[in-house]
Amino acid sequence: MTAMRDLDGSVLALSGGIGGAKLALGLSHLVVPEKLIIVANTADDFEHLDLSVSPDIDTLVYTLAGLSNDELGWGRRGETWNFMTALEAIGGPRWFRLGDGDLAMHVERSHRLRAGETLSDITADIARRLGIGLTLLPMTDDRVRTRLETDEGWLDFQDYFVRRACAPMVRSVVFAGSETATPQPMLMRALAHPRLRAVVICPSNPFISIEPILSLPNVRAAIAACPAPVILVSPIIGGKSVKGPTAKMMRELGQTPSAVAASRCYEGLLDAVIVDHKDAGTTAAEHGAAVFPAHTLMRTLEDRRVVAAKVLDVADSLAGKVA
Amino acid sequence: MTAMRDLDGSVLALSGGIGGAKLALGLSHLVVPEKLIIVANTADDFEHLDLSVSPDIDTLVYTLAGLSNDELGWGRRGETWNFMTALEAIGGPRWFRLGDGDLAMHVERSHRLRAGETLSDITADIARRLGIGLTLLPMTDDRVRTRLETDEGWLDFQDYFVRRACAPMVRSVVFAGSETATPQPMLMRALAHPRLRAVVICPSNPFISIEPILSLPNVRAAIAACPAPVILVSPIIGGKSVKGPTAKMMRELGQTPSAVAASRCYEGLLDAVIVDHKDAGTTAAEHGAAVFPAHTLMRTLEDRRVVAAKVLDVADSLAGKVA
Repeated sequence: MTAMRDLDGSVLALSGGIGGAKLALGLSHLVVPEKLIIVANTADDFEHLDLSVSPDIDTLVYTLAGLSNDELGWGRRGETWNFMTALEAIGGPRWFRLGDGDLAMHVERSHRLRAGETLSDITADIARRLGIGLTLLPMTDDRVRTRLETDEGWLDFQDYFVRRACAPMVRSVVFAGSETATPQPMLMRALAHPRLRAVVICPSNPFISIEPILSLPNVRAAIAACPAPVILVSPIIGGKSVKGPTAKMMRELGQTPSAVAASRCYEGLLDAVIVDHKDAGTTAAEHGAAVFPAHTLMRTLEDRRVVAAKVLDVADSLAGKVA
Repeated sequence: MTAMRDLDGSVLALSGGIGGAKLALGLSHLVVPEKLIIVANTADDFEHLDLSVSPDIDTLVYTLAGLSNDELGWGRRGETWNFMTALEAIGGPRWFRLGDGDLAMHVERSHRLRAGETLSDITADIARRLGIGLTLLPMTDDRVRTRLETDEGWLDFQDYFVRRACAPMVRSVVFAGSETATPQPMLMRALAHPRLRAVVICPSNPFISIEPILSLPNVRAAIAACPAPVILVSPIIGGKSVKGPTAKMMRELGQTPSAVAASRCYEGLLDAVIVDHKDAGTTAAEHGAAVFPAHTLMRTLEDRRVVAAKVLDVADSLAGKVA
């Protein structure tokens, strides 16, 4: 079901959840759907109550379909919580909150996975039904799971991220299953394509959203060898993460949170980095990539479009000049 | 977890869904919880989207916990349907409607079944958490499934009952798995107890709600041999079923719908039948059991209590006089 699209001139974006989805939405306003591929991290995926939950895919789907809950910052707009109330009354787990509408995604996906469909095919079908024209791909159809070594011991990702609200100190991160997983074939085809327009690394958490994608066999090498410009939008603005534990994790992993530190997570891969005006003083030598300052905080839809436009401008300005 | 209760003086009721639950609720107002055992049909159970749905258990749980939707006649009070709306939008099946709150029961039960708990233990735990003091038991922990031979071929129960709204003509009914299923042990202990107060057959559909229970190994013989009075509350009033396809199925199976025909479904088992005043002219010889007319249409809670009181009066009047 994953269409064999003509990749000529396509934009490929690597994304985690909320921050990445903002840029993906911006890109979707500027790039025709046939030429936009979003690859989602799936190392956050987990099984809860035997339901297969794919948080980053769902955030991307809801955002791109115009269904996202912008007040809450996650989940669906107009969500209701009667399932959770009823579940708690019969003794079910309450730490991971599943909205009534959101449940449809997990129940349907779980059912189709058990019936033998791939996550790629299910995601493509759901995206199409919700009116999403671009290509949304999981990074792999195989099982990869982020596990964190912390001061409280080894934790599964959602246990760290949701149940413990990122409070434990992170010492290291592994992606169980990554070594033997097969990267989504269209991701590899896109990276190998001679006329890809750009590879965009969204402003997502480097350690737990983008690194899982890079950790898949051959992906890092394919990005390094990709003839298209590789452009990062910094997830760190003025030493802070816009959302989530990126800055906290940087500190815990021995780095000073900064846009430079973010770029250094992608050493040897980047052609350019778009940093916020707050971080404009930093140099290409520090970043290991050409630096383009912009207003990168994406509060409004217009912000998302502006950052996306900057990404495309930078990409096109670098076209033909990069390896 | 199923408590080893002292069965001395207990009332045992066999029940399907809605009609049975009304009488069960009435009985629960008149019998102390320690002395009331409700056995639910589970041959309507099915798997939908990989969720284990037990319609009769759920109707009993919701009714006995005061959570039932009395306007709709099934499901939970104040139910919302955002899951279904979202499910339909992503191409999921719409023929079986799962309410947002109701889903909690199916998701939690499915999860606990997969983890190896029995349906009996899960049901007992959920009932207890919802404040139900009486003993609510599935007829078996094994898989038994009603299948109907119809003019449209063999149909699974929910396919007949929900998807086709009971429209096909029924030729025969089988309970797949029944022959090798183990009846719930407390059901068998109760039937064998020398001082059980009564066996009540609720006004449920004889063919698809009560017969599955009777079809389990040794259950029919145990009821026939039970020293307690066995009392049916007729599901047919004035030739019509109060709800559901009982009368229609009687016609299709070659019978004229009547309270007498209902009694004849339990030939050799009944000591008494409580019929509606509309059916008061019928004789013990016709029914194969002593006939007690009453107002049996249970519209209000008071109706449910009155019918339950009649059942207990009849049982106690027959105590010691039956085999």
